[in-house]
Amino acid sequence: MKGTVGELGEFGLIRELTSRLTTTPAVRLGPGDDAAVITAPDRRVVASTDVLIEGRHFRRDWSTAYDVGRKSAAQNLADIAAMGAVPTALLLGLVVPAELPVTWPAELMDGLRDEAQVAGAAVVGGDVVRGDVITIAITALGDLQGHDPVTRSGARPGDVVAVTGWLGWSAAGHAVLSRGFRSPRAFVEAHRRPEPPYQAGPAAAGLGATSMTDISDGLVADLGHVAESSKVRIDLHAAAFDIPTQMSDIGKAVGVDPLQWVLTGGEDHALVATFPRGRQLPARWRVIGEVQAMSATPQVTVDGKPWLAAGGWDHFGSDE
Amino acid sequence: MKGTVGELGEFGLIRELTSRLTTTPAVRLGPGDDAAVITAPDRRVVASTDVLIEGRHFRRDWSTAYDVGRKSAAQNLADIAAMGAVPTALLLGLVVPAELPVTWPAELMDGLRDEAQVAGAAVVGGDVVRGDVITIAITALGDLQGHDPVTRSGARPGDVVAVTGWLGWSAAGHAVLSRGFRSPRAFVEAHRRPEPPYQAGPAAAGLGATSMTDISDGLVADLGHVAESSKVRIDLHAAAFDIPTQMSDIGKAVGVDPLQWVLTGGEDHALVATFPRGRQLPARWRVIGEVQAMSATPQVTVDGKPWLAAGGWDHFGSDE
Repeated sequence: MKGTVGELGEFGLIRELTSRLTTTPAVRLGPGDDAAVITAPDRRVVASTDVLIEGRHFRRDWSTAYDVGRKSAAQNLADIAAMGAVPTALLLGLVVPAELPVTWPAELMDGLRDEAQVAGAAVVGGDVVRGDVITIAITALGDLQGHDPVTRSGARPGDVVAVTGWLGWSAAGHAVLSRGFRSPRAFVEAHRRPEPPYQAGPAAAGLGATSMTDISDGLVADLGHVAESSKVRIDLHAAAFDIPTQMSDIGKAVGVDPLQWVLTGGEDHALVATFPRGRQLPARWRVIGEVQAMSATPQVTVDGKPWLAAGGWDHFGSDE
Repeated sequence: MKGTVGELGEFGLIRELTSRLTTTPAVRLGPGDDAAVITAPDRRVVASTDVLIEGRHFRRDWSTAYDVGRKSAAQNLADIAAMGAVPTALLLGLVVPAELPVTWPAELMDGLRDEAQVAGAAVVGGDVVRGDVITIAITALGDLQGHDPVTRSGARPGDVVAVTGWLGWSAAGHAVLSRGFRSPRAFVEAHRRPEPPYQAGPAAAGLGATSMTDISDGLVADLGHVAESSKVRIDLHAAAFDIPTQMSDIGKAVGVDPLQWVLTGGEDHALVATFPRGRQLPARWRVIGEVQAMSATPQVTVDGKPWLAAGGWDHFGSDE
C-alpha cells in the first residue's frame, strides 16, 4: 500500500478502507450502499456522535494512526455502554488531506475495527472527504437488550456513587508525554489507547444503576452533569481512591497531586454510576461517594469541600 | 443572540443549539445525555453518515447557514429514503471556528431541524468542537417498517429504470451561481436547498423496487454503482427526459447541453430505482430506461452509446 490518498482517489480509498473491515451477525448490510442496516432487537437504538480533530484531540507525533482509531472508537463506544447498552455499530465520517499517506487512514480503520470488535460491534459505513485537517466523526449505535436506558438524571439522595475502569491514567500519561518522555509505558499507553469497561455498562443497567455516565471530561466535571441533571449533590471520599504508586511517583516528578488526575483527568472513559444504597456490587465497582440532597453549588464536593482545581475542558475556552 | 461561538463557549453553544430542536414520538431520549435513544420498531435500523466541508460542499457567500442545514440534512435523509426506509433521526458532528458568529450554527441547526421535520425525523444529538474549517458530519437513522432494504444490487435484466424528483436543477443552479448570477431563482434555490422525494423511497420498497439509490454524484455515475453492484448494463433513453424550457434557456446562455446537467448533475437527491417490467408505477415515477444483461463497460449508456461527458465527482481528484 503506497502513495497518498490523493493519488488513490476517493473510490480507491473507500475500497482500501472497507476491505479491512470485519462484520458481526448484527450487521445486515455493511458498507457499499446508500446506508447500512443493523439489527436493533430491542426495538430501540442508542446513538451517539463524537468529533476528533488533529492537533486538538490527538497528535500524530504522539499516537499512531492505529491508536487514534482505537481511541476514537473507544470514546464513542463508551458513550453507548454508559447508557447501559451493548454497542452494535460504528459509522465513520473522515476528513483527510490529499497528501496524507494511505497507510494513515488504513491503520486508523484497523484501530476502529479492532476497538469495535472488543466492544462487540463492527464498522458498518461512513464517508470520506478531502480537507486540510484530519477530522474523525464517529457515530456509535447500540442495543438496550430490554433494559431501560441509564441516563444522567436518575441519581437519588442516598444512592452510592461507584466507578469502574481506569481513573487518571490518561491524564498522567498526557503529563508524561507533554514533558517529552515516553515512559512509564503503562500510563503513556493508557493515554494513547483507553480501555473503557464496555461490559460493565449493560451489567450496571442489570444491577439497577439509577444513573451512569462515562468519564470523558474528568470525574468531577462529568459527575457535575449527573448532579445537575438529577438535581442532587454528590460528595466523593478522597480516601476511596487508590492511587497507584507509579502514579504518585509521576506526580512527584512533575509536581502534580495525582488525585488531581484521578478527579479531573478525562479520556480514560471509565464508567461512573449511582446505585441504590445496599445494592450488592461486583468487585469491579469501587464505591467512591454518595448522593445527597441538592444544595447550593458546587454540586460535586470531595470530603464535603469544593475541589478547587476541579475542571474538565471547555472546548471553546481561550486558555487551551 | 450575539457574539461568537468562542465567546459563548462549548456548553453555551450546545444549549443554544439544542434549545432550537423539536422532537417526534420516535425520540425516546433526545440531546443532553451520553447518547440518544430512538425507537426502531422494525428491529433493524438503517444508518448513513455524510461529511460536508466549507469551501468544498458549500460556500457561505452562496448559501445561508439555514440553507446549508437544509441541504446537509437532505443529503443524508435521502440516503435513508433510498434504502426504502423512513428517516427517524439525525445526529450532528459540527466543527466551528471560535470566531464564527453564533447565529451561523444556530441557523444551521434550524435548517437541519426543519429538513428533518419534512422527512418525519428529528435531530437527537451530536457533538460540537472548535476547529479552523466549518465541517458538518451528519448521521441519519431510519426504520424499514417491515420492508426489505432496497439495495443497489438487485437490478435484473428486463427491469425498467425510473426516477422521481428533480434532475439537473442543482447543477443548472450551480452553473448560474458560478457565473455570478442569482437567477433564475428556481434553479438557484434548487442548488441551495434540494428537495428529495423522501416518501417515494419507502413507497418504492412497497412497489417492489428491485434496486434504488439517491442521485448525489449524478444520474449516470450513481446508476454506474447500481449496474456494477447488480452486474447488469443500464441503457437510458435521452428522449425520456423532459428538459424544462428555462433549463434549456440557461444551457444556451452558458453554452452547456442541459442534458448534461440532467445526466451528470448531482445534489438534487432524486431517487432512481429499478422495477420489474409491467409494474404499475404512480405518476411521480418517470421511466427513463431499462436494465439489460451485463456487457463490457461502460455499464451505463444513453440510447446505446456511452455518454461521453458522463461524470460525477471524485472528491480527491486534482481537477476540482
